[in-house]
Amino acid sequence: MHANNELGTVQPLEDIGRIAAEADIYFHTDAVQSAGKIPIDVNALQVDLLSLSGHKLYAPKGIGALYVRGGTRLRQLLYGGHHQRGFRPGTENVAGIVGLGKAAEISRKSLAADAQRMSFLRDMLQHGLVQRVPQSRVNGGEAPRTPNTTNLLFPGVEGEALLIALDLKGLACSTGAACSSGAIEPSHVLTAIGLPPEEARASLRFSLGRHTTSADIDFALSVVPSAVAQLRELSPTYRKEATAHS
Amino acid sequence: MHANNELGTVQPLEDIGRIAAEADIYFHTDAVQSAGKIPIDVNALQVDLLSLSGHKLYAPKGIGALYVRGGTRLRQLLYGGHHQRGFRPGTENVAGIVGLGKAAEISRKSLAADAQRMSFLRDMLQHGLVQRVPQSRVNGGEAPRTPNTTNLLFPGVEGEALLIALDLKGLACSTGAACSSGAIEPSHVLTAIGLPPEEARASLRFSLGRHTTSADIDFALSVVPSAVAQLRELSPTYRKEATAHS
Repeated sequence: MHANNELGTVQPLEDIGRIAAEADIYFHTDAVQSAGKIPIDVNALQVDLLSLSGHKLYAPKGIGALYVRGGTRLRQLLYGGHHQRGFRPGTENVAGIVGLGKAAEISRKSLAADAQRMSFLRDMLQHGLVQRVPQSRVNGGEAPRTPNTTNLLFPGVEGEALLIALDLKGLACSTGAACSSGAIEPSHVLTAIGLPPEEARASLRFSLGRHTTSADIDFALSVVPSAVAQLRELSPTYRKEATAHS
Repeated sequence: MHANNELGTVQPLEDIGRIAAEADIYFHTDAVQSAGKIPIDVNALQVDLLSLSGHKLYAPKGIGALYVRGGTRLRQLLYGGHHQRGFRPGTENVAGIVGLGKAAEISRKSLAADAQRMSFLRDMLQHGLVQRVPQSRVNGGEAPRTPNTTNLLFPGVEGEALLIALDLKGLACSTGAACSSGAIEPSHVLTAIGLPPEEARASLRFSLGRHTTSADIDFALSVVPSAVAQLRELSPTYRKEATAHS
């Protein structure tokens, strides 16, 4: 994974790619979260294969791309037609392909400016929330990250409950990955970076986009702290801890 | 295959389904060519699995559906996410799904009327061409067929050359299947029904749609006979044969 979907943290693909190249091992990366967010140079990353998804860079849903370095030998997974050199049978989604091409073109032009604006707004949101919500902190904030994502831990709340409370106020967030939405298990990503299950479950992901404004950030800063406070009021565990600490 | 893509011939799935059911074997059919063209009843056909493709019934490209009879056990081909009960990882193409649903709804309402009109126009085209083009005949015309397809054999012409000549006049046809467009081999379907390679290569598929008009048929009838005649003029083999026969 080039950039992690829950944290936005960017993995050191250059280093991995070098090891893989030295060992003559094919190296594939899932760049779904990074394409359109940070520059990608398949040669610098030393990847042989890179996959990306259209809907993450404002192309339609249902279309993606696989970069294959010349000379890479692939075996097909799906059979039944000769389309796309035999690797993916089925009538090509031409409108989707054109949409992905155009979205990539726009992304390439606006990437630097988008990244600068998004990371500024993301930091504004992140600092604002850490200041306004006692004991809150950023997950994965020390690592290099894509400019559009921040993942925050609010001890004493259930992320799922906070998600619903914020949704009712008109703010859409995410716990874990959309791929496992509805799952009860704590995020495997957050437990992998060392969070205990109760902290993983108390975390929430905020994602920005090309069209996020500073007014959106102000709105988030106005609704999140009170929502967290209300949920903490309802949590006997959190109140007990707070009393014990005081 | 419920209906053949090159001939439009409908296979006796009921009989195959009965044999498969008696032997307790799962039965899958590719109904891409039949969905939206003829009525489909998965119980009458005794199929456990049926796949269809949106773009064949006026939904967007890039979306399809797999019918799975309750109790059918499947093994996944693709891994990486929990979407669609784990069988097809990846963010769902919501716009495509909605489009397919709406297209299926429209198809269901208009199927009977569409089929009646299309088969009338198809027969008009077919009879008109057989009358106007000497030695021409219909491939697979004796079998039950979908209402929108006819495949005609024009001895003495190369189907690919005729395709291009007609395209230049504004009439789009097809040799063989789009899946193997550009292939030099004669259609495996036409050789399977007993045509020698030179006859398979002299065949052309005409497909009608919901929006085909009788004016379109008149246009086809006005351009195909002269295009065939011109190509035959250029064919030393055909002229020699014609002379030998006279």
